[in-house]
Amino acid sequence: MLFMAEMTVRIPASLDPQFVEQLKADEKAMSQRLQREGKWRHLWRVVGQYANVSIFDVSDNDELHTLLTALPLYPYMEIKVTPLAQHGSAIAQN
Amino acid sequence: MLFMAEMTVRIPASLDPQFVEQLKADEKAMSQRLQREGKWRHLWRVVGQYANVSIFDVSDNDELHTLLTALPLYPYMEIKVTPLAQHGSAIAQN
Amino acid sequence: MLFMAEMTVRIPASLDPQFVEQLKADEKAMSQRLQREGKWRHLWRVVGQYANVSIFDVSDNDELHTLLTALPLYPYMEIKVTPLAQHGSAIAQN
Amino acid sequence: MLFMAEMTVRIPASLDPQFVEQLKADEKAMSQRLQREGKWRHLWRVVGQYANVSIFDVSDNDELHTLLTALPLYPYMEIKVTPLAQHGSAIAQN
Amino acid sequence: MLFMAEMTVRIPASLDPQFVEQLKADEKAMSQRLQREGKWRHLWRVVGQYANVSIFDVSDNDELHTLLTALPLYPYMEIKVTPLAQHGSAIAQN
Amino acid sequence: MLFMAEMTVRIPASLDPQFVEQLKADEKAMSQRLQREGKWRHLWRVVGQYANVSIFDVSDNDELHTLLTALPLYPYMEIKVTPLAQHGSAIAQN
Amino acid sequence: MLFMAEMTVRIPASLDPQFVEQLKADEKAMSQRLQREGKWRHLWRVVGQYANVSIFDVSDNDELHTLLTALPLYPYMEIKVTPLAQHGSAIAQN
Amino acid sequence: MLFMAEMTVRIPASLDPQFVEQLKADEKAMSQRLQREGKWRHLWRVVGQYANVSIFDVSDNDELHTLLTALPLYPYMEIKVTPLAQHGSAIAQN
Amino acid sequence: MLFMAEMTVRIPASLDPQFVEQLKADEKAMSQRLQREGKWRHLWRVVGQYANVSIFDVSDNDELHTLLTALPLYPYMEIKVTPLAQHGSAIAQN
Amino acid sequence: MLFMAEMTVRIPASLDPQFVEQLKADEKAMSQRLQREGKWRHLWRVVGQYANVSIFDVSDNDELHTLLTALPLYPYMEIKVTPLAQHGSAIAQN
Repeated sequence: MLFMAEMTVRIPASLDPQFVEQLKADEKAMSQRLQREGKWRHLWRVVGQYANVSIFDVSDNDELHTLLTALPLYPYMEIKVTPLAQHGSAIAQN
Repeated sequence: MLFMAEMTVRIPASLDPQFVEQLKADEKAMSQRLQREGKWRHLWRVVGQYANVSIFDVSDNDELHTLLTALPLYPYMEIKVTPLAQHGSAIAQN
Repeated sequence: MLFMAEMTVRIPASLDPQFVEQLKADEKAMSQRLQREGKWRHLWRVVGQYANVSIFDVSDNDELHTLLTALPLYPYMEIKVTPLAQHGSAIAQN
Repeated sequence: MLFMAEMTVRIPASLDPQFVEQLKADEKAMSQRLQREGKWRHLWRVVGQYANVSIFDVSDNDELHTLLTALPLYPYMEIKVTPLAQHGSAIAQN
Repeated sequence: MLFMAEMTVRIPASLDPQFVEQLKADEKAMSQRLQREGKWRHLWRVVGQYANVSIFDVSDNDELHTLLTALPLYPYMEIKVTPLAQHGSAIAQN
Repeated sequence: MLFMAEMTVRIPASLDPQFVEQLKADEKAMSQRLQREGKWRHLWRVVGQYANVSIFDVSDNDELHTLLTALPLYPYMEIKVTPLAQHGSAIAQN
Repeated sequence: MLFMAEMTVRIPASLDPQFVEQLKADEKAMSQRLQREGKWRHLWRVVGQYANVSIFDVSDNDELHTLLTALPLYPYMEIKVTPLAQHGSAIAQN
Repeated sequence: MLFMAEMTVRIPASLDPQFVEQLKADEKAMSQRLQREGKWRHLWRVVGQYANVSIFDVSDNDELHTLLTALPLYPYMEIKVTPLAQHGSAIAQN
Repeated sequence: MLFMAEMTVRIPASLDPQFVEQLKADEKAMSQRLQREGKWRHLWRVVGQYANVSIFDVSDNDELHTLLTALPLYPYMEIKVTPLAQHGSAIAQN
Repeated sequence: MLFMAEMTVRIPASLDPQFVEQLKADEKAMSQRLQREGKWRHLWRVVGQYANVSIFDVSDNDELHTLLTALPLYPYMEIKVTPLAQHGSAIAQN
């Protein structure tokens, strides 16, 4: 089941730079693991912004919420979730 | 080069129903041709709305504009375009 | 799996009143059938508006989209869908 | 009498972590007590957000305001209240 | 129990002028009856707009919804309802 | 001459709690004096928010501005002012 | 007493062109009479829009409402009214 | 050539009060000098807000930008600029 | 003196198609004449929309307003005007 | 390939003034280098704001993103990117 998640990152200037670097490294590692597992199906950067457009493939709403709130950068992100369905003109199955 | 296009369709009630059916059939045919050609890479339905989230893979802005304005439903769509770049944590190339 | 759907109805003044009455009767019948089946779990009226707040219990996004677009008033509704997850402080299971 | 309350929590980074943990524990305890009393009828998590959708059953506006402002997290929440009425197609009474 | 209702009237140009005059006369009569009964406690005009700010005193949400939807101009109004509670600094009781 | 003022209070977490208590006590005293003088005609709490809806009866715009900016909480409030006129259907004079 | 009124004109395409010309001529005549009387103190065009910024000098809210609703183009205008007070740094009196 | 500038002042609580007083005194002096020179043609206070509506008469865009950015309070203001043209119904020349 | 104008075209479906074609031809001719004269300095299409971003070089606000309102498509356009000044880092003069 | 970028700068008051001066000098140097290289084709100041309107000429989305995120002021800017296409009435090629 697919969902689009649009994530915007806002890291407070008051955070310790080393802590931020560690957060970003952890985020990258977790993101890549989820991509390899097929749960984070697509990840694109929005041009000119510290933001991404992502497509998740999960079994239900609870799995998506658990997954998103486990991201290291979650406390510093604004996330907008859009549920997606099969489009009648799509040649591929969701 | 990837772009997200969010399309919302608003067909005026005054249009002839047969004309609308033809428009939709033409739109579907053109959409599927573009998907097979690899230019319309993804097409998802937004749940509960006559709207879609699409990912296009084109060589430049002009090609995208030409492609979108050629869609049979273009006169009845509101389209928001977001340019996408390679994300540093993505395991796939755009 | 639960979703909140906020539906606002806007019936064009140009529609035939008898047709509108039939639409509303069909909508009511379908809504009540879905409520009895447990898919449309809650249905509340927003005070002062031709709008409702609804909770749906469906197996996935596709089922919800199929269900919403089958509603007789669907062509005249604006629908906003919010996916819901289990809340850690809720004493009931979703 | 039913009201929907949409609550979004924003805890300032400057708060002492232990104090925040205590706040959350107190919030959970009070929330569960109100749920058991039947006043906080439903509590759902919004996917991907530190936010909830709640349905309250209170005797009047003043009771709702007293109840919401007594929540431990109240000073850190933005709350939008929507009064709900019986829907003519609902098979259950509010 | 008090509610603020902000009503904006938008009468379509296609309506028959005589019908509109009758609607307005009926609205005025009903509004004045409700004011005399104490249910429509205050009614003020917003300067420069076909809009009003109203305070209603009703026993519950259902009564308010029944009352508002019974107004002759209801089909042509956008209404925003705000529930009001007793203010701790007010010298009068609601 | 009547005006609606919608006031939302946002007190910074950095303020000294004792200073805040004094501000609130001063605000209450001034508010009640203005109510007794008939200038602050109505004061209602917005349910679930640190906000109010107020009706002021002043002789002109300058008096209203002087009055609002003299409120102890003024530096911490966002205020939206709406000028009100006599409504043709109101049974009471403004 | 001064008010800023920002007026945007939207004339429906369905209106008879001769009727529109008459409306505009009447609007101009009434506007210029009010300017000569000193009640419509300033009238400026917003560049690129069928809109104006106006300053009115009236004795109270009711006079302003009566004046605005009497304008021939009133049924086709959206008007936003902002009450103005004497500025402490202004070298002229309002 | 006329421009409307709508300025909203937001002074951070962290600024030294004496420094703020000096800023305001400097702002007032500069504002009055520009008014006497005829460049800052009108200055009105928005009722209930730390904001003003101003009309500037300058020779071009660059002069307006230079003038606004030279204001002592400029770093703490949000400014919205609207270019104004001669209105066909105005009895005065801009 | 430079201004950015963002124009969005909305042609009503009720217009005669031949009339629309003539309007567009006239618009193109006038636009190209103004470009050749150096007054309409840049004209770009917004991807996916019937909209453009334009830069005008005019001697004052009145000239810009006269120019924009003379465009054949003006009655069907929404235009947002932004005055531009010389940027301190620009290597070219405006 | 052209893009409009609208950049708004918000420098936190907590930054060291000397650091800010260095940032601005670096930004200016980089901006002018990109202008000389033809990648940052136009740079205009928005009147009354710490903001600019820019036109970039890049080979693809990735180049634009790399370029924008390399700007010294990038962490303190909000950037909105609009892809531009050749306009059918433009006399110049993009």
